[in-house]
Amino acid sequence: MAPAFDRTAVAERTRVVVTSLPALEWITDNRVARLSQDFNWFSPVLKRQLGHQRADAVARPRTEAEICAVVAACAREGVPITVRGSGTGNYGQCVPLHGGVILDLSAYNRLLWVKPGVGRAQAGIRLGDMDRQMRDERQELRCVPSTWRSATLGGLFGGGFGGLGSINYGPLAARGNVLGVRAISVEPEPQAIELRAPEAMLLHHVYGCNGIVLELEVGLAPAHPWLEAVVSFDAFEPALAFADALAAAPGVVKKGVTLLAQPIPDLLLKAVPVLGGALQPASHAVLVLVAEGAEDALQQLVAMHGGRITLRRCAAEVAKTQRTITEYTWNHTTLHAIKADKSLTYTQCAFQSGRHTQQAAQLRAHFGDEVHTHLEWIRNLEGALTCSALQLIRYSSDERLNEIQQTYRDHGVSIANPHAFIVEDGKQGRINPDVVAMKQRLDPLGLLNPGKLRGWAVREQLAQPGHAQPELVTLPRF
Amino acid sequence: MAPAFDRTAVAERTRVVVTSLPALEWITDNRVARLSQDFNWFSPVLKRQLGHQRADAVARPRTEAEICAVVAACAREGVPITVRGSGTGNYGQCVPLHGGVILDLSAYNRLLWVKPGVGRAQAGIRLGDMDRQMRDERQELRCVPSTWRSATLGGLFGGGFGGLGSINYGPLAARGNVLGVRAISVEPEPQAIELRAPEAMLLHHVYGCNGIVLELEVGLAPAHPWLEAVVSFDAFEPALAFADALAAAPGVVKKGVTLLAQPIPDLLLKAVPVLGGALQPASHAVLVLVAEGAEDALQQLVAMHGGRITLRRCAAEVAKTQRTITEYTWNHTTLHAIKADKSLTYTQCAFQSGRHTQQAAQLRAHFGDEVHTHLEWIRNLEGALTCSALQLIRYSSDERLNEIQQTYRDHGVSIANPHAFIVEDGKQGRINPDVVAMKQRLDPLGLLNPGKLRGWAVREQLAQPGHAQPELVTLPRF
Repeated sequence: MAPAFDRTAVAERTRVVVTSLPALEWITDNRVARLSQDFNWFSPVLKRQLGHQRADAVARPRTEAEICAVVAACAREGVPITVRGSGTGNYGQCVPLHGGVILDLSAYNRLLWVKPGVGRAQAGIRLGDMDRQMRDERQELRCVPSTWRSATLGGLFGGGFGGLGSINYGPLAARGNVLGVRAISVEPEPQAIELRAPEAMLLHHVYGCNGIVLELEVGLAPAHPWLEAVVSFDAFEPALAFADALAAAPGVVKKGVTLLAQPIPDLLLKAVPVLGGALQPASHAVLVLVAEGAEDALQQLVAMHGGRITLRRCAAEVAKTQRTITEYTWNHTTLHAIKADKSLTYTQCAFQSGRHTQQAAQLRAHFGDEVHTHLEWIRNLEGALTCSALQLIRYSSDERLNEIQQTYRDHGVSIANPHAFIVEDGKQGRINPDVVAMKQRLDPLGLLNPGKLRGWAVREQLAQPGHAQPELVTLPRF
Repeated sequence: MAPAFDRTAVAERTRVVVTSLPALEWITDNRVARLSQDFNWFSPVLKRQLGHQRADAVARPRTEAEICAVVAACAREGVPITVRGSGTGNYGQCVPLHGGVILDLSAYNRLLWVKPGVGRAQAGIRLGDMDRQMRDERQELRCVPSTWRSATLGGLFGGGFGGLGSINYGPLAARGNVLGVRAISVEPEPQAIELRAPEAMLLHHVYGCNGIVLELEVGLAPAHPWLEAVVSFDAFEPALAFADALAAAPGVVKKGVTLLAQPIPDLLLKAVPVLGGALQPASHAVLVLVAEGAEDALQQLVAMHGGRITLRRCAAEVAKTQRTITEYTWNHTTLHAIKADKSLTYTQCAFQSGRHTQQAAQLRAHFGDEVHTHLEWIRNLEGALTCSALQLIRYSSDERLNEIQQTYRDHGVSIANPHAFIVEDGKQGRINPDVVAMKQRLDPLGLLNPGKLRGWAVREQLAQPGHAQPELVTLPRF
């Protein structure tokens, strides 16, 4: 796979890098362990593979000059670089497999400019900070994970998918959501380039393996005042029908529709008692964000489907209290559920648009108590409404976990496997030669997050004209 | 159908009404003929049936008190009332069949208030004026016809469908687009009531037959700076594929996608020579409005499908020149095409989402030169992307026109028949008992736009519990 790195030599060369740049903010104490990890512990598989991995030092640069200085030094010394935002990823994206330097970009975080519908910022900006700074412009990010408070824009681009707002704009990968990036190469004299979409998207969701993204230019959404509500149902079917109808309704402006079927609300009540009332024991919960002007329409749909509004918070209340139900959706659901029941893990599914509610209901019946249904409505890359799922799974063994995921595939549901830390393994093993060619261009020495990109190991084969899709290679175990 | 009105008696009683209210603005001269008509002449069928119809007088009230005074006087005298906005409808909605008074609401036109996502205005406000007054709030109407410059909000509600913007919000009838209306009854002492959605929607597209709408509260959209472009193609198939891909792309913010297949661009060039360059002889044209921030994405899609951008106007240019391609879409296309070729008429189709491009291509091949393809992309009531069509038809006879429309239906395409002036006849003849009950409530004397609502003739039958869908009755010929 990656060139073998001698751990002792890497540690020694990292010390040389650190020493050579005394003006930078370096972390070399026991905080390095925490800064080498993310939320990969959601997966018992990844936790076993990655939990012990750590870097030798963390750099926290504040300017492009400082970033280039670290990168140049690492290139000269042959030290692996793993780029990190806030470490809210779930796939071990920012866990270094061969030590070296963590390039923590969280202090490189300025909002550069905002125009109608487009904004540009440095990679380390927190999503919530960016939204806050654009509030007077009445604009906001189009799709954000539930970790928006701490997650960075660069991290979302480098290892994320989308989230709240994807019900309108699809995943971050959909054309128009990212307009361009400024990236630098890993070389003794780093080169900066501006890449525009679609070329810029070759760096998306590649875990920082094929270039260091410094700035991002992204499409923005109008910032509506969002009303947050929880709608509770006694039975699963009407909850599913309500959520799908609300998600589809073209005249009802919304940002998120989440269905937490039983026993998930009960698990959340255990982990977060303050949710009492909003979530009701033995009830299924639909968490929704709609524009305040859509409240009448929401109430009509709730009544039509026999639901009960068990929480209602207007935008001003959310802003004032800083309490938001968005932090119980997407992978925050996973986080809180695992807190309540340590035997749980999860997987990520993409249903087929048009068959999505049927597939969700069928698979819920199929697995019974072994898989808990958590659905998030989105538009897919083609703009069709569907729901994706972050199903909670009672873990028993790796084999059973794979078997469950395979059953989903057998039902025509795609799986984005969150128990793999290799870029391609989360994506059905497909190698993208253009992604590898970009790494050849921006990381010719193979120092960026080594061991995460399967295509890099077979890059010579990929460079042949008319090459076939390469065989999957066996990875070293860590 | 309607109670028989003696034309001479109606004329006489109208004179009594006019004389009794000398302080009002009345029109009784030869302008009454024009104010009794709309664009029903797009249809040779309607032109023959309605072209000679006129009212006896037109009232142009400025206040609710003035409106109530006219209505009360008409109720006392038994004079028919036909409500009118700007007369931009195509179905003879505001053409009186039994004389009487035209209630022209175009001077009752104040914007009442605007909140984020919701606005309220008097029925006679012009759509373009409302948008202009909301510009500082960066909000605009969600879906407007191509006649937005002159058409009124009340007219859109009373006899319209949607239009530009329906690609995002669906038709005006979709839940959430209209929140409520204030209406008055036709009685010697008119009663005002506030109706909220969904009940308010019983007055939508009923041609002012079952209540007089004075104010409307509607959902608003964020006002993006819209870039206008024409993309030209040598062949139909790539134009169709491009338009569909652009319409579907979830990350590309847009307001309208229109496909004018040959020979429509050639017809428009003949009628509107200033379009030279933007429209190209023998080319198929896709007219698009996208957010300025989406220009990169637009260019990518154009290149992928082998199109040429033959017109590009940024929002500032459109605002400055007041020239906009929106006035060559929807039924403005029909208007200009008929100018160039008097033998043309049209029909309105709703394709099945998912099969829409296939159906459009098949029917284009089926009819050859007899039907010209004009497609408008929208979301339907359920939120699914589809295209509707305002196909231009070479008129030969009523029988052939019906035959063509039947062929569309046989292919699974719905027709909203624009050659019928009866509410139900444009909607597959279906009578809605709730619409009729609303007329019983707000127009117990049957004075509103008599002869347009089929269900009114069978209201006693409808009032029976458990009644069946009534038989269609034969209408009097005018």
